[in-house]
Amino acid sequence: MQAEIITIGDELLIGQVVDTNSAWLGRTLGEDGIKVTQITSVQDDADQIARAVNEALARVSIVLVTGGLGPTRDDITKHTLAELFGMRLVRDEQVYETVRRQLAVRGIAFNELNRGQALVPDGCTVLPNRNGTAPGMWFERGRKILVSMPGVPFEMKALVTDEVLPRLRTHFSLHANVHRTAITFGLAESILAERIAPWEAALPANLRLAYLPSALCIRLRLSAYETDPEKARSEIGRQFDRLTGLIPHYLVGYGDDTLESVTGSLLRSRGETLATAESCTGGNIAHRFTAMPGASDYFLGGVVAYSNEVKTALLGVDPDSLNRYGAVSRSVAEQMAEGVRRATGATYGISTTGIAGPTGGTPGKPVGTVWMAVATPEGVHSHCLVFGSVRAQNIERSSSNCINLLRLQLLGFGEPPLSDNI
Amino acid sequence: MQAEIITIGDELLIGQVVDTNSAWLGRTLGEDGIKVTQITSVQDDADQIARAVNEALARVSIVLVTGGLGPTRDDITKHTLAELFGMRLVRDEQVYETVRRQLAVRGIAFNELNRGQALVPDGCTVLPNRNGTAPGMWFERGRKILVSMPGVPFEMKALVTDEVLPRLRTHFSLHANVHRTAITFGLAESILAERIAPWEAALPANLRLAYLPSALCIRLRLSAYETDPEKARSEIGRQFDRLTGLIPHYLVGYGDDTLESVTGSLLRSRGETLATAESCTGGNIAHRFTAMPGASDYFLGGVVAYSNEVKTALLGVDPDSLNRYGAVSRSVAEQMAEGVRRATGATYGISTTGIAGPTGGTPGKPVGTVWMAVATPEGVHSHCLVFGSVRAQNIERSSSNCINLLRLQLLGFGEPPLSDNI
Repeated sequence: MQAEIITIGDELLIGQVVDTNSAWLGRTLGEDGIKVTQITSVQDDADQIARAVNEALARVSIVLVTGGLGPTRDDITKHTLAELFGMRLVRDEQVYETVRRQLAVRGIAFNELNRGQALVPDGCTVLPNRNGTAPGMWFERGRKILVSMPGVPFEMKALVTDEVLPRLRTHFSLHANVHRTAITFGLAESILAERIAPWEAALPANLRLAYLPSALCIRLRLSAYETDPEKARSEIGRQFDRLTGLIPHYLVGYGDDTLESVTGSLLRSRGETLATAESCTGGNIAHRFTAMPGASDYFLGGVVAYSNEVKTALLGVDPDSLNRYGAVSRSVAEQMAEGVRRATGATYGISTTGIAGPTGGTPGKPVGTVWMAVATPEGVHSHCLVFGSVRAQNIERSSSNCINLLRLQLLGFGEPPLSDNI
Repeated sequence: MQAEIITIGDELLIGQVVDTNSAWLGRTLGEDGIKVTQITSVQDDADQIARAVNEALARVSIVLVTGGLGPTRDDITKHTLAELFGMRLVRDEQVYETVRRQLAVRGIAFNELNRGQALVPDGCTVLPNRNGTAPGMWFERGRKILVSMPGVPFEMKALVTDEVLPRLRTHFSLHANVHRTAITFGLAESILAERIAPWEAALPANLRLAYLPSALCIRLRLSAYETDPEKARSEIGRQFDRLTGLIPHYLVGYGDDTLESVTGSLLRSRGETLATAESCTGGNIAHRFTAMPGASDYFLGGVVAYSNEVKTALLGVDPDSLNRYGAVSRSVAEQMAEGVRRATGATYGISTTGIAGPTGGTPGKPVGTVWMAVATPEGVHSHCLVFGSVRAQNIERSSSNCINLLRLQLLGFGEPPLSDNI
């Protein structure tokens, strides 16, 4: 089953907005076995929209259109589609009510533009948009389907998940496509592939494995093409259990899990707390934990100890150690982790101290050298990694590896296995 | 002058990679008066590439193609373009040398695939790629131009800036298009537009103003269509000087300036230092400063005081104040800023304490309520803002407004003007 995406909006073409909708749609449709073969971005222009829609409908069975709706654009897409499909615009009472109610809540007067929002082509199926005023519209031409949706990402995503995909599955009798994604951290793609090759080779024929690498982790997706979704789900579960046995240190979680969400959940379930002492990561570890709702359940706070004086004054790092070993050293990293644990009364203290770059390296400690430590009630564990020369990457990778060091401690894995500095 | 962009790569269509090249190209070409009218993303497929290229060349004068090059893709784009333009592939000695040298540096053996990389269509102009192995290729069909470039963003951007744009300007005798962007913070678009309406109305006819709003600021771009670039630059400078007089509090800087880069530069030039005390922003302000190279010149560090106990233990906040006024209060914000200034010896201490959400609000202090303070050698200044219910936005907006409070103090503007909570 093939699909094309058409995104409409001058803001995409002048580069004011990056089109992130298309990548999300490509991924989401792909998980249901629908292959996106072209993405076309066009201006808010009736002729261009009509041409792009006709060409796409000639090539594939499914065309998803985002954007070009809303009162300030004269709903140009809606008028163009109505004409293309030979329909009249009529008032939809439910959409009218939605617009009226949403404006009333915000105390805005209902005007002629809003009245226009309630018009829909009379032969399309209206898909309710629970997050905004512009509804989705489902058109059929023969067996082919075109769906028009608003361009606001969270409105579009909810429409696709709640309305569009279920209807496409029914319309095209798509096989149930069950999938689940495991998150790994700490092994480069080539090494991970080598390590899990026997497992991959032994996968049943109806399961397909995909590698989805990103800057921070490698995700492994198992998809099952199987008419019995329950059976597929339990088969995928069994296979991921086997995978966990093979790479226990590296398999972090599933789905939307992240290093910090998994670590936070472990702390919460154990009734334990965390504090951070950051030098080279400059507050980024604290930020990654506190970006999650409910972080206050386990996150007490921390110190960003950028200067040596702050390391000494707030964390009690010994000035002699700073002089003798330098700020980027095992001794200082361990004292920072222990110091923040003591100062805040947290169960665990974690620390980073390194050279983020692009300058500041020495032959013995090049840019990218980072020491990190975890202080626990039983003692302190530390670890050194050497990353590259790009500051933003060094900060992000140090943060991830430091959080991972704590995760491994919480799971009783002790010292981390050899890492290739992912 | 109109252009289309074609991006090639399966990874774009399955959603593994978001296409950021197109937005950059749209913006960059737009600054030279070239309007992008369509963006088409296609698979690594010869037929699809050939169709997309022919259709685009039929519509516009300039077609920019990115991606689809490199040995692991069989250089499919190169073969397709050679055929389309009726050219043979021949070895380019300069490209051959570049590939050989780059592999030698990395100790990689030269193989058949690499030999293929040195082949180019014999009628195109080869544009050197100083950041990678695949060169740019410039084709002409009548007066129309097609340029093929690698998809790696930093390789593509350097090619466009160094090679493609200068050649397009000459080929099409484009007028010099001078432009400069001012960064504003603290006024919503509609209010800003009202405030600067007289200035905009009085702009000379050869200057054009564009609003470029983003999540964190509103950028105002002035472009001049003028044959004398020197004259245009000084005219734009004069107009922005007038604008500064009109909205002195709100005009933060120019070009790539940010609130934190401007504030950091002010601190550096005065030889002064900063420390942060963050509750609801959870380390994000420290992270934004330390993400910039050279932050250690003025940033000493800070405390992430998430729990009340840490506010008291590390910042000396009075437990009575926490009980009487609550953690989200003027008194606590001021004590946090003063506390971190005292503890670190910094010239300035800045603080945030608020309810990031999505839960935790009360009728008197709804989600999104944030107190922030700046402690200076002369005293402490504080400010309360109420944002919305989205946690990530509340964290980012609180961070920006807190940094802005310090910026206004450093510039001697004292208390911030009324803000509409941008």
